[in-house]
Amino acid sequence: MNKDPITTFFEAKSFAIVGATGNKDKLGWFIIDNFLTHFDGDLYLVNAKGGEIEGMPVYKNVLEIPVIVDAVVIAIPARFVQSVVEDCVKKGIKSVIIESGGFAEVGDEGKLLQEKLVETIKDTGTRIMGPNCIGVLSPEAGIDTIFIPQDRVGRPKGGPISFFTQSGAMGSAILSSLHHAGDGAWISRFASYGNACDVNEVDFIKYMGQDLSTRIIMAHLEGFRDGYSFLKEAKKITPKKPIVLLKTNRTELGATASASHSASVASDDAVVTALMKQHGIIRVEDFEEMTSLARALRTQPIPRGARIGVVTDGGGFAVSASDAIEKEGLSLGNLDKQTFATLKAKYPPWYISGNPLDLTGTVTAEEFQFGIEQFCFDPNIDAILMIIIPSAPQFDVHDFINIFSDFIVNIKDKHPESAIKPIFSVTLGGEESQIIDAKMEKLDIPVFSTPDKALTIVKYLVEYRNFLNHNRTLLLEGRY
Amino acid sequence: MNKDPITTFFEAKSFAIVGATGNKDKLGWFIIDNFLTHFDGDLYLVNAKGGEIEGMPVYKNVLEIPVIVDAVVIAIPARFVQSVVEDCVKKGIKSVIIESGGFAEVGDEGKLLQEKLVETIKDTGTRIMGPNCIGVLSPEAGIDTIFIPQDRVGRPKGGPISFFTQSGAMGSAILSSLHHAGDGAWISRFASYGNACDVNEVDFIKYMGQDLSTRIIMAHLEGFRDGYSFLKEAKKITPKKPIVLLKTNRTELGATASASHSASVASDDAVVTALMKQHGIIRVEDFEEMTSLARALRTQPIPRGARIGVVTDGGGFAVSASDAIEKEGLSLGNLDKQTFATLKAKYPPWYISGNPLDLTGTVTAEEFQFGIEQFCFDPNIDAILMIIIPSAPQFDVHDFINIFSDFIVNIKDKHPESAIKPIFSVTLGGEESQIIDAKMEKLDIPVFSTPDKALTIVKYLVEYRNFLNHNRTLLLEGRY
Repeated sequence: MNKDPITTFFEAKSFAIVGATGNKDKLGWFIIDNFLTHFDGDLYLVNAKGGEIEGMPVYKNVLEIPVIVDAVVIAIPARFVQSVVEDCVKKGIKSVIIESGGFAEVGDEGKLLQEKLVETIKDTGTRIMGPNCIGVLSPEAGIDTIFIPQDRVGRPKGGPISFFTQSGAMGSAILSSLHHAGDGAWISRFASYGNACDVNEVDFIKYMGQDLSTRIIMAHLEGFRDGYSFLKEAKKITPKKPIVLLKTNRTELGATASASHSASVASDDAVVTALMKQHGIIRVEDFEEMTSLARALRTQPIPRGARIGVVTDGGGFAVSASDAIEKEGLSLGNLDKQTFATLKAKYPPWYISGNPLDLTGTVTAEEFQFGIEQFCFDPNIDAILMIIIPSAPQFDVHDFINIFSDFIVNIKDKHPESAIKPIFSVTLGGEESQIIDAKMEKLDIPVFSTPDKALTIVKYLVEYRNFLNHNRTLLLEGRY
Repeated sequence: MNKDPITTFFEAKSFAIVGATGNKDKLGWFIIDNFLTHFDGDLYLVNAKGGEIEGMPVYKNVLEIPVIVDAVVIAIPARFVQSVVEDCVKKGIKSVIIESGGFAEVGDEGKLLQEKLVETIKDTGTRIMGPNCIGVLSPEAGIDTIFIPQDRVGRPKGGPISFFTQSGAMGSAILSSLHHAGDGAWISRFASYGNACDVNEVDFIKYMGQDLSTRIIMAHLEGFRDGYSFLKEAKKITPKKPIVLLKTNRTELGATASASHSASVASDDAVVTALMKQHGIIRVEDFEEMTSLARALRTQPIPRGARIGVVTDGGGFAVSASDAIEKEGLSLGNLDKQTFATLKAKYPPWYISGNPLDLTGTVTAEEFQFGIEQFCFDPNIDAILMIIIPSAPQFDVHDFINIFSDFIVNIKDKHPESAIKPIFSVTLGGEESQIIDAKMEKLDIPVFSTPDKALTIVKYLVEYRNFLNHNRTLLLEGRY
């Protein structure tokens, strides 16, 4: 493979697994199992004991492998790793993932081991991901080095989102969460890179920025190894692809916890926020916002502006949504006169035909859908939030699902440009809300548990739209 | 019944339903059905047509009923309501719930109808809840005037929480949400009181404050009809029972939406916040915080202080939890020397034996449980947050559930005073996290989807503890 070592981590055509074992309770086997199931390239197994696993020969070391493999994943005790890395360098293998723990994260002795690894690859062209990591998931290439079985950590289907984090816990939690969120297409390239002794955030952002299968970049960072280069790369990418960042380790307490966890250096949090904003990076506050934004970016267009339309049958929630719209710096769109007249003509006098559109507790499924449609076609609305209280006595949940599905499917066919604006759904209630939520997810409409949460995500999208607009201005003026 | 009219709404021994019908698709029937199923008192049916329903006589008006019933619920078109209320006054019935819509919420004409109702009861001792409302749920008394069937709006079991809101949507959403949250004991007294033409927030807070079956008061308000009296009553209650308030209609936009919804007057939001704080009222930000806090208050003791202990196997989440602890004004407890030594002796060297306790990806169920126990017994920890990443390869979910259950059940028996401190659980992952969450809810441990959300709820509890402590000081000094 003639690509650079970082690309090769995600696109390798041949892989060696060091620490291969036929013992189906062991981590080494789980990695083999992943590759046997998904990898179309050439697989080589390595274990100092030699022998055979599932009819495949086991080489005693990487030097014995008859070809120069593109990439190696190492899952053996820390004290044996050094010599394997030396062999990789000798053989000219450029991409090495070290999953083994027992390095800088366990104290001074481990730190020395790790420093020796870094020295070994210096100026050789070989790059190391890890140590102390779960490595790579790249569904399109069939690469999956995660040593945890699929029933413990979900593997979302291939899709447009690339994600990187040092933390194995964060990485596996996000994979499981997206996998669990639905059957959709999710992950393009995923890397959880542990101690980051060599490969770091700059390598990933650069690669994912130019990777054609990546449409959205998401990352969790506790600190920057090279903040300047990271921002320099991000600046080239954000006008074309959104970058979403969960930057923890924001406070003194967080910094103390992080020193033990990944030995990252805390930066002044306000400076980090300002720089991210300037470079068009979307900074989310927590894990849930990250997964929610992943779902919104994957399925919805970026709204053209900040003018929100709210359709609901719960007046109390119209009020709290209005509060949240103002809090998030968004606005309620002023309905077009024509829309207003159409609503007035359709509904009984006690419905509040405006924005928010309050259809009250007497709403029917058909009336609710009618409101959504009018908002979809109103030129003064940039994004729609529907807040459904399914317990309204005349609101039939299954009727609603059917009418709404028909509409969404047809609108995508018939009005691909003009009519599509982002739609977000909140349903408040018990079992009926689960029925609606499940259907919405199937229709690629992001669901949220409260209006406030939906509007926080809309805010991020609108801020990104503002950045894109501002950026276009700068470009036109030759200032970007 | 010799109690006051407000008490009677929730404890009536005889009830009349005006608008009774045998048509099982109609609202009037759903109310009858509720009473037939749950109400032990005397039920009277009223409909201008007379006749019989399910073998019960139907009176043509309330005057014909052979006794003076404690309470009446009216569910007939708006234009017929006035004469029914006049009859109630004539008969000396003191508690009248008007569920019918078509009053102030639909415009000037309805407003006049509503004003006439208020005039009719003036100085008569009769009180009106509503109009335009779903009324009362009081499980202990078997009273349920909600005209929406149980499969559309959940009815949580009787329990310690009383709740009031003008909004029918908010009311039915909270009932469904709590019903859905688990099998536990939830609702003491619930009222959704619509347009509040007469009975308002002051009546409810006063009643629930002295009601013995109410241990926790929660409310959603868009505005105050009589803010001064509300605070005066609240001040007497908060030293004994927590009051949790979701006050929406905070912003100009919210105020506009609210004017159409319940015609409440917006107050200066910062003033509202300051007054609530001073009176020990816990102000939550949104619907989800309200239901989360309901679950926390129902099951957990109020922590003695702000010193949080974090137990996790995900280092990345230890960092983000530390961030959130600082953000919320809480602190990480300094482990007792003895605890620290015990942890050090138990765990491998790469576990971070401190607070946060980071058990890393090699944790076992037994090791996780051991950490929680040490934190439970540490005198420097006031509340425990466990953050479980169940995908750790050697962490067996079912083992953990079993060991943890044993511990929780026994600790409640063996160390009722010393050992119980509030515990909150966050599990991040896919299906395995649902298994753990379901078990935790059964064990009355509140579950959250992220550490940030758990810590926001802990903050509210700690602030309430601070209020209680401050209040005790004031009391001792004779200043409260």
